[in-house]
Amino acid sequence: IEVVGFSDEEGARFGVPFIGSRALAGSLDAETLETRDADGTSIAGAIRAFGLQPSEIPAARVGDALGYLEFHIEQGPVLESLGLPLAVVEKIVGQSRLEFAFEGQANHAGTTPMKFRRDALAGAAEWVGAVERAASAGLVATVGQLQVTPGAGNVIAAKVVASLDVRHGDDAVRYNAVAQLTDCAEQIAARRGLRVSAYSQLDHCSVAMNSRWVEKLERSVAKAGMRPHRMSSGAGHDAMILAPLMPGAMLFLRSRGGISHHPDETVLPEDVAAALAVGLHFLEEL
Amino acid sequence: IEVVGFSDEEGARFGVPFIGSRALAGSLDAETLETRDADGTSIAGAIRAFGLQPSEIPAARVGDALGYLEFHIEQGPVLESLGLPLAVVEKIVGQSRLEFAFEGQANHAGTTPMKFRRDALAGAAEWVGAVERAASAGLVATVGQLQVTPGAGNVIAAKVVASLDVRHGDDAVRYNAVAQLTDCAEQIAARRGLRVSAYSQLDHCSVAMNSRWVEKLERSVAKAGMRPHRMSSGAGHDAMILAPLMPGAMLFLRSRGGISHHPDETVLPEDVAAALAVGLHFLEEL
Repeated sequence: IEVVGFSDEEGARFGVPFIGSRALAGSLDAETLETRDADGTSIAGAIRAFGLQPSEIPAARVGDALGYLEFHIEQGPVLESLGLPLAVVEKIVGQSRLEFAFEGQANHAGTTPMKFRRDALAGAAEWVGAVERAASAGLVATVGQLQVTPGAGNVIAAKVVASLDVRHGDDAVRYNAVAQLTDCAEQIAARRGLRVSAYSQLDHCSVAMNSRWVEKLERSVAKAGMRPHRMSSGAGHDAMILAPLMPGAMLFLRSRGGISHHPDETVLPEDVAAALAVGLHFLEEL
Repeated sequence: IEVVGFSDEEGARFGVPFIGSRALAGSLDAETLETRDADGTSIAGAIRAFGLQPSEIPAARVGDALGYLEFHIEQGPVLESLGLPLAVVEKIVGQSRLEFAFEGQANHAGTTPMKFRRDALAGAAEWVGAVERAASAGLVATVGQLQVTPGAGNVIAAKVVASLDVRHGDDAVRYNAVAQLTDCAEQIAARRGLRVSAYSQLDHCSVAMNSRWVEKLERSVAKAGMRPHRMSSGAGHDAMILAPLMPGAMLFLRSRGGISHHPDETVLPEDVAAALAVGLHFLEEL
């Protein structure tokens, strides 16, 4: 049994996530190591400054292993709302991130009658509503950023750049949703005399956990005296990186208040104890 | 006949509009003269640097005058769409500017199911649609700015600050529209578990031009061989400042492409000639 704590799963410093698990998987290439942070320091430079040798990374590549079990907080409100401490992750959802640019014409907010307007913000806002309505069972769709140009109260917006984040466990459902929302943006733009362009920034397929390991983990939860609950993970995890190499499974711990990426992020000590108990049963299962 | 070209009607440098016409009206007070530009220069300082004495401003106050006639470009697309070179302004519309802050809860765009969200941007976008629908004959309503916090593609928006600009010739209609849109924001917020607050930044009443002068100006347009067209001005003008002191009227000249506050802003020489012809007939009327 080896216990691993991976570095920079989030990609907060270099914009490159899963640095540690990619080293273990042997997929951290030389080009990635030259990625630089905001101060111009490369990943390779940061590793050397820490007293280690980037040239030794290939030696970290994992050899034969029975599999990989990851413990992680849920980072969401589901377990708390169900009153359960733990969940078995059966799938890490696929994710699409795009940028939509709506372009109209800036004009005077007082002297331009409504019928003469080509208001990029009014068009983008209509689309944000469509994004929210496109979400359905298991599909989350989010516009988290909207940049308005010129962005003055008395000027009709010329341009709006909006983000789109779509996630679902079934990649076909996700692709359909992205296609539908792209069509919808084009229809809104055509009706309003706007132009719209969409740019794909990220497209990650969903990653299933190993079905036999998922079952073993469920049995372990039951043996530890809790009701097993399966769920998808809406966030990416190191388990995604190792899944192609070996059987993998993940156990989620309840997040208090569903809060994550925040100083208030926490887990209850008794939930950690429950997760450790499940881990021991899981070892027996193996 | 005195011909006046007023300084800084826009308020571009000091954020204070109508500096020249307020001097003529005797309403440019000492406090306003201390307003500073981005470099820290006060209005009084700029006047001194130009070789003039702020202390002499009171002497600019207008005495007995028959009235005030202003020529101005329309700054909008109405005359061009009607195929007319000139319009008689009967009223400068009243204007409300407000800021609406929608507050929800930031959370992970992947791990937070739709039903658990309190998405400030989804709420603000719904309200932007309501603002557009609230506009009707003669009423313009604009959201030109929307600031999203934290503003990341994979984070549900915690806070959105949106501008609102509402204008109408009838102040009661404008106040009703602002009240209705404030109610609408509160209903949207209540339904979505958001908080919303509205802050009034500016409230200018509409200013009517002198009805007898408007009629004289209409006759002058007809005498010059054109079809008289009355319209409201959606933008503020120096004529607003002088209207309480003496009869006032305004003649709009067609804006090519309806473009204003832009290097492409222009008028046709023949429209200027037509405006001058109308001005001569107007002097005869007086």
